[in-house]
Amino acid sequence: MADLRQQALDYHAAPTPGKISVEITTPAETSKDLSLAYSPGVAEPVREIAENPDDVYKYTGKGNTVAVISNGTAILGLGNLGPMASKPVMEGKALLFKRFADINSFDIEVTHNTVEEFISTVANIADSFGGINLEDIKAPECFQIEKALIERCKVPVFHDDQHGTAIVTAAGMINALEIQGKNIKHANIVCMGAGAAAIACMELLIKCGAQREKIYMLDRKGVVHTRRDDLNEYKKLFANNTDKRTLEEAIDGADVFVGVSGPNLLSAEQLKLMAPNPVVFACSNPDPEIKPELAKAARDDVIIATGRSDYPNQVNNVLCFPFIFRGALDVRATKINDEMKIAAVNAIRELTKEPVPEEVLLASGETSLIFGKEYIIPKPMDSRLCARVARAVALAAIESGVAQIELPENYFI
Amino acid sequence: MADLRQQALDYHAAPTPGKISVEITTPAETSKDLSLAYSPGVAEPVREIAENPDDVYKYTGKGNTVAVISNGTAILGLGNLGPMASKPVMEGKALLFKRFADINSFDIEVTHNTVEEFISTVANIADSFGGINLEDIKAPECFQIEKALIERCKVPVFHDDQHGTAIVTAAGMINALEIQGKNIKHANIVCMGAGAAAIACMELLIKCGAQREKIYMLDRKGVVHTRRDDLNEYKKLFANNTDKRTLEEAIDGADVFVGVSGPNLLSAEQLKLMAPNPVVFACSNPDPEIKPELAKAARDDVIIATGRSDYPNQVNNVLCFPFIFRGALDVRATKINDEMKIAAVNAIRELTKEPVPEEVLLASGETSLIFGKEYIIPKPMDSRLCARVARAVALAAIESGVAQIELPENYFI
Repeated sequence: MADLRQQALDYHAAPTPGKISVEITTPAETSKDLSLAYSPGVAEPVREIAENPDDVYKYTGKGNTVAVISNGTAILGLGNLGPMASKPVMEGKALLFKRFADINSFDIEVTHNTVEEFISTVANIADSFGGINLEDIKAPECFQIEKALIERCKVPVFHDDQHGTAIVTAAGMINALEIQGKNIKHANIVCMGAGAAAIACMELLIKCGAQREKIYMLDRKGVVHTRRDDLNEYKKLFANNTDKRTLEEAIDGADVFVGVSGPNLLSAEQLKLMAPNPVVFACSNPDPEIKPELAKAARDDVIIATGRSDYPNQVNNVLCFPFIFRGALDVRATKINDEMKIAAVNAIRELTKEPVPEEVLLASGETSLIFGKEYIIPKPMDSRLCARVARAVALAAIESGVAQIELPENYFI
Repeated sequence: MADLRQQALDYHAAPTPGKISVEITTPAETSKDLSLAYSPGVAEPVREIAENPDDVYKYTGKGNTVAVISNGTAILGLGNLGPMASKPVMEGKALLFKRFADINSFDIEVTHNTVEEFISTVANIADSFGGINLEDIKAPECFQIEKALIERCKVPVFHDDQHGTAIVTAAGMINALEIQGKNIKHANIVCMGAGAAAIACMELLIKCGAQREKIYMLDRKGVVHTRRDDLNEYKKLFANNTDKRTLEEAIDGADVFVGVSGPNLLSAEQLKLMAPNPVVFACSNPDPEIKPELAKAARDDVIIATGRSDYPNQVNNVLCFPFIFRGALDVRATKINDEMKIAAVNAIRELTKEPVPEEVLLASGETSLIFGKEYIIPKPMDSRLCARVARAVALAAIESGVAQIELPENYFI
């Protein structure tokens, strides 16, 4: 691990500090080039945009640019370390946008006092970009921030820790339930954790058919229930009218366990209390709520997914966020709405059921991937994802009326 | 011109809309690469920065990144066309930062109501960058904005329309006065225009030796004098205790004319009123206050500079801003102070007096460039500028106590 630590630090320090650069895409060598790029030539696109605001998409990079914005209040699993400490993560996210979806992305770390100040700062710069990806902002402020920014901004605003996680979780979960012969409509669900990701996951599962009254959410104090008076407005939506108080009680007979909490919080004994053919998403990183080998030793009818790349069924946001933005940008969607999120869920689900081409196996370091208990969700290195998810999302944007332009011709066909 | 217009539009539309992209500087192909770039490896630099804030310069791109920020209230000579119309200019500025000084730069256009809102928006995102280049913000708000941001930000903030223009003007002006056998200390100066560039130019000329009482500034209403009651606080600093009211009166016997106003505002007759061996900077773009051919026909003892590349003596901000930021970034200066600005003036001045290498002549499309009336300032394509200006600025930052690190070893030697 000491070695991995040094490798990661070296990776960030060289060849230049950080991981991204800004490069020139047009000729810029000669005086003539520069007279087009800047004064006097640049006055022409300025005039065009002043007359026809949509031309900003024709003459500037806005339409293919996403800002990755954080205040560093919930960095990875490390907590509130401030805006500067979040910068490597945000640059990493920008790198992933480029790597997976050819989106130009850069990071902005916001220092602020009040939540309102964060909101107005981001709203005031939002028009510079084609979209805003919020990242590593702690709950419950993140809910208020995202809601306000969606209302105020003309470009899509997406808090990936919530919705990216939710979309990938929902895709894997519904596939897993299908394999287990279960329907999400009847599933008893335990959600360990009550933060941004947990709440977004449960909301999306409900939109995909889960029933709110069959969800037992747990925070540090146990089951979130209707007789508690310490719940914020977001947890309150999941307050269950139940006598269950502990994980032990909640998990008894449950079909689904979703962990977005912390390491080793689910024991083998507790797992054994679940209904037959259960589905366990142990997404705490790097150490899951229960280790897959322990889970499988406890009962062989379980499907288990984690956040880790070294086990099957990795729940990884990169399966979604580059492509949901790709689709949204390509039809200039003003929002990323539920229809687009569900379209992403379905596209990810369907791709899992298709035969996996040789090059995807190779890139993923696998010899075989066949839809089943050990393959409920595509691999992050699956190069088919971009076309499938982006196209589904773009079509959903058009159908739901938030797209501002038609689908580009032959779009990802 | 119709053809040039279309060329400029085509240049901005292809190969992709805009002129800059974000690219990846580290390996990002394999799962292993991505495990270093993002989760879990990225946690390591996060922890380092949380413990030692200066490590943000070691593990992220902050130290070589400049934001180009505008609200579009004074775009080129075109006026207040709003933030979106300014985007091609800001992307162009980012392109120039990269082209001339290898600085990663991207543009942020700010939408805001009050000046205070603009200030707090920029202050809140400033830590994301190594420096802030303000651009195309109208006077007098630009003065208040720059002052407040310099106070609030830990990184250098520089309004190029003011100080870039002032530095290049001062360098050319003092060289021209030297050639004319005059000393700036005794020069009578007429400044046509009273906006951001005009005021910054005069302030810097004063710091270089000019005397405030020998400056006659003119706005739309004529000479700025002590009996006017319509002056904002910035113009007031130039209110001259004089009976002169018109350009005609002010220019009578003047040694220097600086025009940062509008086309054709200085007539040949007025030029003839100036003292022997005058210096005229007719910087209105694209059409100068007086055309060089007209000026030279009126009197052959004049030195004339313009903002245009098709005449000798082009006053072009690109001679300064990429390099003043290069020097400031490389010693992590917290400010760009007067010492650094004057160091830039002197470095630009001195370079003009050196023999011009063949490759610079070639890049500039010239057969000969010798310090004199037709060559008072380096050419924009002079590749020696970066080393000279950046080094002078970095040394001045260190000597004046605003640098946070030593000069890098063998820095531009």
